[in-house]
Amino acid sequence: MTELLRQEPHVISAGLGVLADAARQQAARVTEVDWKPPMPGTEDDLVTVLGDARRTAANALAVERMLAVRAHLVDLLPAREALGLADGEFLHAGPPVSWERASGPLRGALMGAAVFEGLADDPEAAADLAARGGFTLAPCHSRGAVGPMAGVVSPSMWMFVLADPVTGRRSYCSLNEGLGKVLRYGAYSPEVISRLRWMSAVLGPLLQDAVRRRGPVDVTAILAQMVQMGDEAHNRNRSGTLMLLRDLLPSAVAAASFPASEIARAATFIGGNDHFFLNLAMPACKLALDAARDIPGATMVVAMARNGTDFGVQVSGTGDQWFTAPALTPEGLFLGSYGPQDANPDIGDSAITETAGLGGFAMAAAPAIAALVGGTAADALAATRRMYEITLAEHPLFGVPALEFRGTPAGIDVTLVARTSILPQINTGMAGRVAGTGQVGAGLVTPPAQIFPAALRALARAARA
Amino acid sequence: MTELLRQEPHVISAGLGVLADAARQQAARVTEVDWKPPMPGTEDDLVTVLGDARRTAANALAVERMLAVRAHLVDLLPAREALGLADGEFLHAGPPVSWERASGPLRGALMGAAVFEGLADDPEAAADLAARGGFTLAPCHSRGAVGPMAGVVSPSMWMFVLADPVTGRRSYCSLNEGLGKVLRYGAYSPEVISRLRWMSAVLGPLLQDAVRRRGPVDVTAILAQMVQMGDEAHNRNRSGTLMLLRDLLPSAVAAASFPASEIARAATFIGGNDHFFLNLAMPACKLALDAARDIPGATMVVAMARNGTDFGVQVSGTGDQWFTAPALTPEGLFLGSYGPQDANPDIGDSAITETAGLGGFAMAAAPAIAALVGGTAADALAATRRMYEITLAEHPLFGVPALEFRGTPAGIDVTLVARTSILPQINTGMAGRVAGTGQVGAGLVTPPAQIFPAALRALARAARA
Repeated sequence: MTELLRQEPHVISAGLGVLADAARQQAARVTEVDWKPPMPGTEDDLVTVLGDARRTAANALAVERMLAVRAHLVDLLPAREALGLADGEFLHAGPPVSWERASGPLRGALMGAAVFEGLADDPEAAADLAARGGFTLAPCHSRGAVGPMAGVVSPSMWMFVLADPVTGRRSYCSLNEGLGKVLRYGAYSPEVISRLRWMSAVLGPLLQDAVRRRGPVDVTAILAQMVQMGDEAHNRNRSGTLMLLRDLLPSAVAAASFPASEIARAATFIGGNDHFFLNLAMPACKLALDAARDIPGATMVVAMARNGTDFGVQVSGTGDQWFTAPALTPEGLFLGSYGPQDANPDIGDSAITETAGLGGFAMAAAPAIAALVGGTAADALAATRRMYEITLAEHPLFGVPALEFRGTPAGIDVTLVARTSILPQINTGMAGRVAGTGQVGAGLVTPPAQIFPAALRALARAARA
Repeated sequence: MTELLRQEPHVISAGLGVLADAARQQAARVTEVDWKPPMPGTEDDLVTVLGDARRTAANALAVERMLAVRAHLVDLLPAREALGLADGEFLHAGPPVSWERASGPLRGALMGAAVFEGLADDPEAAADLAARGGFTLAPCHSRGAVGPMAGVVSPSMWMFVLADPVTGRRSYCSLNEGLGKVLRYGAYSPEVISRLRWMSAVLGPLLQDAVRRRGPVDVTAILAQMVQMGDEAHNRNRSGTLMLLRDLLPSAVAAASFPASEIARAATFIGGNDHFFLNLAMPACKLALDAARDIPGATMVVAMARNGTDFGVQVSGTGDQWFTAPALTPEGLFLGSYGPQDANPDIGDSAITETAGLGGFAMAAAPAIAALVGGTAADALAATRRMYEITLAEHPLFGVPALEFRGTPAGIDVTLVARTSILPQINTGMAGRVAGTGQVGAGLVTPPAQIFPAALRALARAARA
């Protein structure tokens, strides 16, 4: 002890930097330990969940199942047939929500879909019908489906059908309409409805015919290629769209089941919409994550989804329970004269891509995304690097060129989020908050922090049971 | 002076590291200056050329003209029509070469082309005919064309016709056959010849019809996109090929000028060959560099090309003169059981991509190329960074995502190469050295160093004249 006091003091500081600064100002030698307390109020639940004897094996199994899935596009079908949707029944993105609590873009999309289905003559009449309880609403996720932005699915819309060839499990997603004034961003003008009619009358059946003639398209393999080609499969799907066109078009052309002019129109429509493949990337991620559901003790997130009002997560160890809180509003870049005041809070099932190790988690592979959502290529690299702190695995198929082909961070662990306070990084389109507007921009967002302590609490309760 | 001696000595060392090391071992403070002598024997010529009053403005003009070119695909035509090639006349890659001095793959390609043209019944008979002086040979570059690998063009082969909409100038390249056993790698088996016959009978006319109906395809714009999508446009042309398919297929389908089965076959052929777009990237680069030719005093390289025996460069300030030396053999990765002993020396006009700021100069944009040519993503980044040392410009259209969208290094300056001894980095396919073999691998190579002092000597002579 006497010996210790004879030496110069050497301060080791953990946590807040102010103490280290104060010691340094008094000329003391200071070593700072990079330590932060966990999210407030999670200490006891963390002790319980981290002490759950099932956890390590359960998470290993969740990861193994997620990574084993191959998603093949095997068919296209109308939602009525694929999902058994009845007249007046609509699916939407995110956790459950009522018409009363629905945001502008979700309302707008439901109004447009009701007109498209012939349930109302115009959007206003559709809104009246909805307010009188005329619509039955359910989350896409509750039917094995996902939907970008508002994510509204009605019986006559055509769905991509994806299947895992090993397990036969399936997932579903509607067809992408393009950008700007489109239903999924809450627009419902006549051009939106007539595009939907063409998609149902021609595009869906034509692609169904092409897929059935050609045989399954390996969507997972395309995703792996995309990560080598500057796409992160959420807000950049350029190369994926082109590869889909390459894979499906020859069989459509050779079969000639449709007039050449319609095949050409379909090719132009798909080729002119860099986001077309998003609606295949999303159900591929959904299929992978669904395989990791319902493993007792597993703390891995299996869904992140937003309905424009609430943000919700589902966790492997807690079944179908949603942990929700009000969605945040993205920050980013705006189209034309739109600004922050025009943006609706975060909306869409597309955060399923981040949940599976793509999107915001794979931005290091898509530095050009910076031009869309703001920031620099260095920011994109940093975002991916940060996500390794809260994930259980590195995806072996999604090697990031700029990181010497290290796999993307995949499999969000609720305990790691609670422990580090690092929130999942999501990149996203922004819908106008007023129904009927359409897209107003794109940017970055995270889940509201409080859903992770809530999920952790449920995991702790399950561990104690 | 007394003051100086009273201080600790501080050594400043330029050049070889051994002197700095010796001083450091004697505990002296050493600052090393990163300096190397120029290439041996270039000192006097460097003084003359760097002192040429025309040089700065001439190079600025060369750069300006190169960067101003937009290359549009405007038509396809048989070489007979496009280039006025007569029977028995063949173009080849690289600087001029005789049959006697031609390498195995160039001989193999000429033999196959002669069979394809009906000048000989079999490859052996074609070789006899060539040995008796039956072929007229000329470099592609001498006719405004470029050809990958052997680069053999015969009158019946179809050519892409590219034009700059402002100046109307044109450049030409044959259609890409795919990989493996193909004419450009020196293979001449019956499958090679029958593929060439289909390309002339169907693929060329079909694409001609599609381009004429659609209107020009902006190849330069596609190149700019490719650099955002992991392609460097020499050994990775994946996204470029897909974008071409997207742009041309709808008009081919809509017109229905050809049977649906042939349109589907063409789409499958193009979509199944990631290198198809190389034969558009190359003439686009040729068109840009031809604009920078023949500027008195300009020290910018306007062509690098290899015929499998010699490597040659042409420089803006010295007209059509080739500066040549024996081509080096690439180092890289081999297909199947092939090894270094099977590789022919460097061959092809495709180094026109590096000359224009793509290929090896843009590898930082295509880290996945490492899997093809060897090395790591970090090596790819370092290669691009090194090329800034010997180039005059950063290409404003080719922003490298991993370098925060800094333009690729473009416009090689002979004086900078002589001054730094840094040689242009080329990535390339490797042909088997025995005629008839085909591709054996892919790798990295540089020009033989001595061609740059030779070019500098000619520039110095011109400056003194």
